[in-house]
Amino acid sequence: MAPAYEPLLAGETSSNNNDSNIIITQDEVPINKSRVTVVGSGNWGSVAAKLIASNTLKLANFHDEVRMWVYEEVLPSGDKLSEVINQTNENVKYLPGIKLGNNVVAVPDLEHAGICKRISGKIREDVEAISLIKGMEVKREGPCMISSLITEHLGVNCCVLMGANIANEIAVEKFSEATVGYKENREIAEKWVRLFNTPYFMVSAVQDVAGVELCGTLKNVVALAAGFVDGLEMGNNTKAAIMRIGLREMKAFSKLLFSSVKDSTFFESCGVADLITTCLGGRNRKCAEAFARNGGKRSFDELEAEMLQGQKLQGVSTAKEVYEVLSHRGWLELFPLFATVHEICIGSLPPTSIVEYSQS
Amino acid sequence: MAPAYEPLLAGETSSNNNDSNIIITQDEVPINKSRVTVVGSGNWGSVAAKLIASNTLKLANFHDEVRMWVYEEVLPSGDKLSEVINQTNENVKYLPGIKLGNNVVAVPDLEHAGICKRISGKIREDVEAISLIKGMEVKREGPCMISSLITEHLGVNCCVLMGANIANEIAVEKFSEATVGYKENREIAEKWVRLFNTPYFMVSAVQDVAGVELCGTLKNVVALAAGFVDGLEMGNNTKAAIMRIGLREMKAFSKLLFSSVKDSTFFESCGVADLITTCLGGRNRKCAEAFARNGGKRSFDELEAEMLQGQKLQGVSTAKEVYEVLSHRGWLELFPLFATVHEICIGSLPPTSIVEYSQS
Repeated sequence: MAPAYEPLLAGETSSNNNDSNIIITQDEVPINKSRVTVVGSGNWGSVAAKLIASNTLKLANFHDEVRMWVYEEVLPSGDKLSEVINQTNENVKYLPGIKLGNNVVAVPDLEHAGICKRISGKIREDVEAISLIKGMEVKREGPCMISSLITEHLGVNCCVLMGANIANEIAVEKFSEATVGYKENREIAEKWVRLFNTPYFMVSAVQDVAGVELCGTLKNVVALAAGFVDGLEMGNNTKAAIMRIGLREMKAFSKLLFSSVKDSTFFESCGVADLITTCLGGRNRKCAEAFARNGGKRSFDELEAEMLQGQKLQGVSTAKEVYEVLSHRGWLELFPLFATVHEICIGSLPPTSIVEYSQS
Repeated sequence: MAPAYEPLLAGETSSNNNDSNIIITQDEVPINKSRVTVVGSGNWGSVAAKLIASNTLKLANFHDEVRMWVYEEVLPSGDKLSEVINQTNENVKYLPGIKLGNNVVAVPDLEHAGICKRISGKIREDVEAISLIKGMEVKREGPCMISSLITEHLGVNCCVLMGANIANEIAVEKFSEATVGYKENREIAEKWVRLFNTPYFMVSAVQDVAGVELCGTLKNVVALAAGFVDGLEMGNNTKAAIMRIGLREMKAFSKLLFSSVKDSTFFESCGVADLITTCLGGRNRKCAEAFARNGGKRSFDELEAEMLQGQKLQGVSTAKEVYEVLSHRGWLELFPLFATVHEICIGSLPPTSIVEYSQS
C-alpha cells in the first residue's frame, strides 16, 4: 500500500525523482488512527518524514509508523537504498548523518514511471493528501496547480505546505516556519499542522491553496532579479527594492489569476520569508548573479551545466511561462519586473535593465 | 528665513545634529511658486537636497533654488562648512564627492539649540512639512510620532518619507524606492512625490502616516533579532523566519496602537523593503551579531562604543520602549519576538532565546 504520485510533477526538484513529495494520511478502521505515508524520499522528503515521525509518536490519532516511499536505487556499495535506510535509520544518499526516527519505515518502489496513473482509482476517497512540491507549470491559460492535479488524478482532497524551508537546515533542527494552504476544511488543515509542527518548525494554516502554491513558484522569478542585482553589485538597498517589487508582482499576479487569493498570505512564511531565503541563498539567485557578472554573454543553460551539477533552474522556465501568460492576457505593462526578468534571461535586454523599467 | 526643528528629535541620526531632516515648502505670492528648504544637512539630508534640486529645475510650480539649512561647523581647514558647500557644491563633510546641484544653497545656522521653540509661531501656516526622521520615542502611553510633534510645535501639516534608503547608495544613483505617508490631503502627498521622485528613486504615497513612521522605528528591533541569528550562525532560513515574525509584530503592534494603520503599508518600501535592507546591513544588525557571538557577555554599550565611533544604536532603546508599552498594556504574550529581543539586550535571556519563544 504505497499510493504515490510523481511523473506529472515538474518542479525545482524534478531532476531528483526522490524529491517530489506528497504526504497522505488514511484512516484505518476500526481503530480510527490515521496512517501516514510520505511519497518521495529525497532531501526534503526525508526531512518531512523525520518531522512527522517525531509527532506520530506523540499524537494519539496517528499510527506511530510513518511509511516513506523510496524509489529503489542500488548504492555504490551494491546495497539497496531502501534496505540501508531501514538498517541505519538514515537516508544515506539524500540526507546523510540524520536519524529519521525508528518509526520511519522505507517502502521500496520498483516502477519509476506512471505512478500517478497506476494508483489512480486504487486509493480510498477518504485519503487526505498534502503536496510539498514547489514549482508548478504556468501554462498560457493559467497555472497548472499541483494540488489540483493531485485532486483530479487521485480523486482526493489536497492541501499544500510551503515556506522558507531549506531541508538541510531543518534537518539539524534550526528554527524555521511553514505555511499550510487549504481549500475549505479547517479541521483537516489543523490535522496537517499538528503532524508537521515542532518547536523548531512552526506551521500555520491559511485558507488559500492557490496563493500558497503560487508563492512557491513565483519567488524563483524574483530570485533571478535579486541575483542580477547581486551580479551588478548594486547593494542591499536596490536588492531590497527589487525584492519588494517582486513580492508586489507575485501578489498582483496571483490575485489576477485567482480572485480567492488573499493579501495576507504574502505575509506568511510561504510569502515574504520564502522570498527572503530564496533571494539570499538559492540556486536561482546564484546563477543569475553569474549571468549578470558575465554581462549576459554566457547563457543560463551554460551556467546551469557548470554550476548546478545536473540540477535545473526553475526560475528561468517559470519566467518564460509567466511571460507567456502576461503577453497572452495583455498584462505585460502591469508586471514590469516579471517581464524584464524574462527578457534579460533570453538576451533581449541587458542585466542592467532590471532597475530601468518605469514605475507601474 | 530658515525654519527648522531639531532638539526634540531622537533618532538613529541623533548623534549627528546635521541629520535630523525635515523639508518644508512655502508658497510665495504673487508668483505662486513653492520654495523648498531642507532642514538638516547630514548624509541623508544632503542626498535629499540633491534629489529635490534635480526636480525643482524641472517643475514649474517650484522655485529652482533649494535652501539647505546647515548647522555651522568649522572644518579642520578653518573654513566654514556652509561656505565650502556653496563654493564647491559638495557637502565635503557629510557627503563628499557628490555634487548637490548648483541650485542648492547652504544657509548657515549659528544656534544649535532650541530651534523648534525658536521658530515656533514664526512660520506661516500654509507651510507644508515632511519628516525624513526615522526613530521616534515610544513612550508608555504610546509612540511619540515625530510628524505629530512637528504639527504640534510648528502648527503645520506634516507628511513623512521613509523606505529602504541608504543615503550613500542613493547619492550614486543606485535604484531605490521610498514611501510618503500622508494624513488626508492626497494632493499634498503627490506634490511631495513629484519633488522626490526620480528614475532611480521611485516614490509612492500611502494614506497612513502612523504606519509609515512606525515602520521606520520598529524595524530596528527586528534588525537586532536578525543580528542575533547571524551571530549564532543559524542560517538564512532561520533569519527569514525571524524577519517575517518581526514584520508580523511590527504590523500587529502598529495596528493595536493606531486603528488607522493599514496592512498594505507593510508591503511598501517603508515596510518590507526597509526591513530587508536593515536586516542585511545596518548597525543594529551588526552590533547584535557581535553581541550574540560573545554570548551576551559584552554589553551593547561596550560594543557600540567599540564598533560605532560615537553613533548610538536606535534598536536597543526602541526595544526597551516597546517592552514598556507591552508590559504596561498586558500585551507581552502577543509579541514574543519584541519581548525576547529586549530581554536578550538586558541580559535576562541568552541570545539563543531568539528562536525559542512559543508560537503566538
